[in-house]
This record gives sequence, structure tokens and C-alpha cells, in this order.
Amino acid sequence: MTPRERAQTQTTRRSAQTATLAEIAREAGVSAPTVSKVLNGRADVSPATRTRVEELLRTHGYRRRRAEATRSPLIDLVFHEMESAWALEVIRGVENVAREAGLSVVLSESAGRLTPGRTWADQVAARRPHGVILVLSELDQAQRALLTSRSVPFVVMDPAGDPGTDVPSIGATNWQGGLAATRHLVELGHTRIGAITGPSRMLCSRARVDGYRAALETAGLPVDPSLIAAGDFHHDAGYRLGLQLLRRPDRPTAVFAGNDLQALGLYEAARELGLRVPEDVSVVGFDDLPVARWVGPPLTTVRQPLTEMAEAAARLVLELGRGDEAAAATRVELATSLVVRSSTAAPRVAGS
Amino acid sequence: MTPRERAQTQTTRRSAQTATLAEIAREAGVSAPTVSKVLNGRADVSPATRTRVEELLRTHGYRRRRAEATRSPLIDLVFHEMESAWALEVIRGVENVAREAGLSVVLSESAGRLTPGRTWADQVAARRPHGVILVLSELDQAQRALLTSRSVPFVVMDPAGDPGTDVPSIGATNWQGGLAATRHLVELGHTRIGAITGPSRMLCSRARVDGYRAALETAGLPVDPSLIAAGDFHHDAGYRLGLQLLRRPDRPTAVFAGNDLQALGLYEAARELGLRVPEDVSVVGFDDLPVARWVGPPLTTVRQPLTEMAEAAARLVLELGRGDEAAAATRVELATSLVVRSSTAAPRVAGS
Repeated sequence: MTPRERAQTQTTRRSAQTATLAEIAREAGVSAPTVSKVLNGRADVSPATRTRVEELLRTHGYRRRRAEATRSPLIDLVFHEMESAWALEVIRGVENVAREAGLSVVLSESAGRLTPGRTWADQVAARRPHGVILVLSELDQAQRALLTSRSVPFVVMDPAGDPGTDVPSIGATNWQGGLAATRHLVELGHTRIGAITGPSRMLCSRARVDGYRAALETAGLPVDPSLIAAGDFHHDAGYRLGLQLLRRPDRPTAVFAGNDLQALGLYEAARELGLRVPEDVSVVGFDDLPVARWVGPPLTTVRQPLTEMAEAAARLVLELGRGDEAAAATRVELATSLVVRSSTAAPRVAGS
Repeated sequence: MTPRERAQTQTTRRSAQTATLAEIAREAGVSAPTVSKVLNGRADVSPATRTRVEELLRTHGYRRRRAEATRSPLIDLVFHEMESAWALEVIRGVENVAREAGLSVVLSESAGRLTPGRTWADQVAARRPHGVILVLSELDQAQRALLTSRSVPFVVMDPAGDPGTDVPSIGATNWQGGLAATRHLVELGHTRIGAITGPSRMLCSRARVDGYRAALETAGLPVDPSLIAAGDFHHDAGYRLGLQLLRRPDRPTAVFAGNDLQALGLYEAARELGLRVPEDVSVVGFDDLPVARWVGPPLTTVRQPLTEMAEAAARLVLELGRGDEAAAATRVELATSLVVRSSTAAPRVAGS
């Protein structure tokens, strides 16, 4: 987008903010204080009125003014699920930026976040944080409209799906990471390289396996679809799919796992089959969680700068809150880097 | 405490709540709204006035009434530091209870939590959560008085020091855990058993090593102080102290580590020295973090029900908030249990 195009987009956005609170109240057939109550997420409004007012706020593209003054000193951090050490790296990053800004972090999981009569988004609207950071978690249109009408800025970190070009987001160079991991294995001399992937609905997971394919193809090696096993990002998937790959008579001599937890599952599968890492099978992970250094053998992995990504997301959402419209079109990808440890080695000569 | 004694304590507490807000304002030479501002953690009060009013609130043992109505739908969770997967288990527990109660969790680290002119406790006072859960983190007298005067209940989880008998707290049976871990090693036939401990200022750490000593003594085995290495709860301490212990010519055949991260550090030290776990050295950890199942060999460890402890702490603080005075005297210890995996075995016969 050129600066001129961006300026035009901003003008369009501004001109949409025509309806005042009073006009919305009139159209809804309620008083202005009732519209205020809806905006503030107060419980003492009937569901029917709330729905009608929300609908009008949405169609008029209403955006609260002077939100800065009425904000709570909070940042909302929303996870789809908070299952692995991964989450802790992210929390730490957001916490670092929040502390500097004198804010506290409110944590929630989007799964099961509905409470009777009041949705998660209502709660956010009621507490008016400085911003919302969504981690691998998506907002539906209604939630997005609700936050926009309260001028609560939001940012998506490492989007699971396509966040839309109008949603600012922070990711990592997943494709580059998959490429670097697989090139490393190719350079060691491996020609039969398997892959364990995360869920295909997650873009980050697709990007990693596409990088793997690109490395094979640019090296002139065939891509064998039967060596690509799709799972989720948990340890058990690495174990289960690892057993499948390593039990094959023509088993791969190296495997690129979709993340570190899968790699640890793969370690377990190898142990169970009496195979040694890296002598019998080389393993590369993704993320570089603290545990990657601690396992035996220490794991070669693609470092994803989770804490830095979370810091960038937090800074971005605060910029948006200060009205920095240029930030709204931002899509940042931080660089991944290969960390070589002891789980990768040259393949043994066949039959040796 | 008998029911009668408890009733008397309650009466004493109530009679201390004599000073009204108006009286405190008069004594401080300010208006009642100014006292309100201090209570609400508002920034527009001079530091001198704030100090004077806080002092009077404290000396009069002022406690805000009808706090229920004005509370935000939040629970504050405060860590001393949020460095390991340990923290995630705790967050999950608090989140479980908060979700059921329709509350959100505000997260902070007590280290470095001061922002100019306003302390962490001021921020808490300003947002008026349903309660505060402190994890391995202590409140000083002034912070305690500040929360009490706002009727913000608090609970300490797994106290680092002595929380005082008047502070409700949730812990685990650390002593029993140390005993069970060491007895398991004794029963396997080990007689030279080392220990790596956490910081001695933390009660949980002292209790574990006392359980270790008790197991040796009740088995008629000598306690060799030179086999007890004191560190902190991080991976590096396990590695560093593990090297010290395992490099000795009369090295122990088994080591009880203060937690799982130390145990993983010990694994690394053993690998570096060419020693195998459990053939050359048996290892027991403490906590049972998810990673304990994933490392090679899977770690024998003492399970500490961190998520359940955090749930209990959250339920307790909500009970306190509902005015359940009986909960105020609570000190709960949840049971630990030994989980035997593959890192422990009988010692090899000397010289074999």
C-alpha cells in the first residue's frame, strides 16, 4: 500500500464515523444512557435492547471517541489454549511491555469463555483495556465490531488462519524456518527426510511444511507425500506419527518435526523402537523452547522468537491505542533461525 | 482453634472496625472524597496526603464495607517470577476457577512491579479485584494493610517463607514428598544418596530436604552433609551441582533433586560425564511437570498437584471475598505422590 492509498483508506474510515451516540439511541428507540450502558458492557440492559443497539453500532461503524481517558490500565491476552511452555514465552513478552507501560495483563482462554448472558467480548468491553492481543485465536465479525465500536484496538499473534488484511498481526518467518531446517538435513547428506506437521488449518503449520518441500525440490530431491504425516502440535502426535514413520521398512533417516513437543514425542518413539538419535535418525524441531536444550540429545531446532514476537504485538497494540493509524495495516514477521545442537548428524551409510 | 475461639477472634476483628471514612478524613484534615480517592487508588492525590491517609487507615484497621458491589470481575495472580512450566500449571488452575465464576485473571510478577509514584498494591486497590493469589511471593506489612483496608482478600500459594498464621495459604506436603522419594531410593538398595535442594529461605525447599534426611535416618543410614548441595530451582543449578556431586570419587549412586528442572540439569551433567541414568546414577525429581514424562529416560518424580493447588487457592480467595471468615484461618496442604518411571533402578554392585 502506498502512503497515498493508506491516507485514502484512513479518510474512508473516518467518514464512516458519522452517527453519534444520540442518533443511535434515537434510531434504537432508547435513551442515550442506555446506549452508553451497552457500550460499557453493563448487565442491566435487556438482551433484546442490547442486540438492537449492537446491531446499530455495527451498521453505523460507530467508534467511541476519547477512549484513552476511560481506559483501564490493562492489556488483554487471549489464548486459544494455554497448554505448553510456548504460552509462557508469550506471556513473558507481553508482561515485559505491559510492565514498562504501567499496565497489567489479563489472561484468558477463548475456548469455553462464554458466561451466561455475557460473552467474553462483553467483559472486555466492560473493562476497557488498552488493547487485546489474540494468540492463535480468531475473532468473529461480531466480536470484532464490538471491540471496534469501543475503540479497543486488537492485534493477532501468529494467526491460525488468514486474519484478513485489515487486522494487524505479528508472526514469524515459518516458511524460512522450514526451509532452513530441511536444508540443514540435506547438507548433512540425508535424502529420505520425513516431516510431521501441525494442523493444516493453521497457516504457520502450512508455511513450515511448504518450506520443507521447497528445500527438497531446490535440492533436486523427490517429495514423497507418504513421508509427510499430519497431526497437531502436541507431544502425543509426535510420538504416534513418529512410530508410523520409523516403523516403515524404508524409514526416513531424518525427520523435521512441526514443533519441539512433536520432536520430543519422536524421541520417545525412537527410544521405544531401539533407534538412537542422531545415529539412526536425525531430528529437527521448531520453536526452541527452553526444554530443547535440556533433552538428551539436545535438540537441533528452528528458533522462533516467541517472547520478542509477543513484545512486538504488545507494542503494536499500544501504538494503535494511541491512534497511530499507520500501525493498523501492519503485518510483521520476525526472523526464525536454525539452532544446531546434537540431534542431527550425517546418515549412516546404508547397511552399515 | 475451637469454634468458640474463632468466634472471639471474629468479634475482635469486627470491633476494630470502628473508624468511619468521615472520621479518618477529619483526623487527616482532608475531605471524605479525598479518602475515597486514596481507597480507590486514584492518581490525583498528593503523595503526602496519600501517605497520611494510608497511615490512618492502617492504625484504625479500617476495612471497606460492601466491597462486593464495587468489585471488578477480576482475580489477581502474582508470581515472584514466571520462569518455568511450573507457572503455567498454576495459571491454568486459577483460570479454571475464574472461568466458572465469570472472572478474568490479571497476571503480574512482583519483581520490578513498581511504577513511578504508584505501587503494585495501589494498582490492585484501584482495580478492586475479587481477590489476590500470591505465588511464592510475599506481601510486606504495608501492602497487607492496604489490601485489608480495601477488603481485597488474599491467599498465599506454596509460601516461600512463613506466611504467618493469619494468612490463609495453600501448600503441598513437601516433607512427605521428600520422604517418599528418598524411601523409594533406599528400597531399591541405594545407601549413598545425594540431594540437590532449592533455596533454603523457601520453606518448601527446606521441607523436602528434611523429608530426605528423615528417610535416611529412619532407615538407619548416615546423613552425609557433603552430599547435600544447595542451589536454586533452575536447570543450571541441577547441572552445576550435579557435576560437583558426580565428579566425586565416592559419588552417590542416586540423587534426589529439589525439582524437575534440577533433575534435567542433573541428566545433562551425567551425560557430560559419560554416566547413564539409571544404570550409573538414579534420579528423582519433584513437581511432575509435563516434561518429566517426555525426557529420556522418563523421570521418576514426586507429583505436586500444582493445578489443583491453584484451584484450591482461587476457591479459597473467593470464599474469603464472600465473607466466609472461617476460611481466613485456613492452611491447606494437598498431598504429593511418588510417580515411578525409568530414571531409578537398583545400584550396580560396586566394582561391576
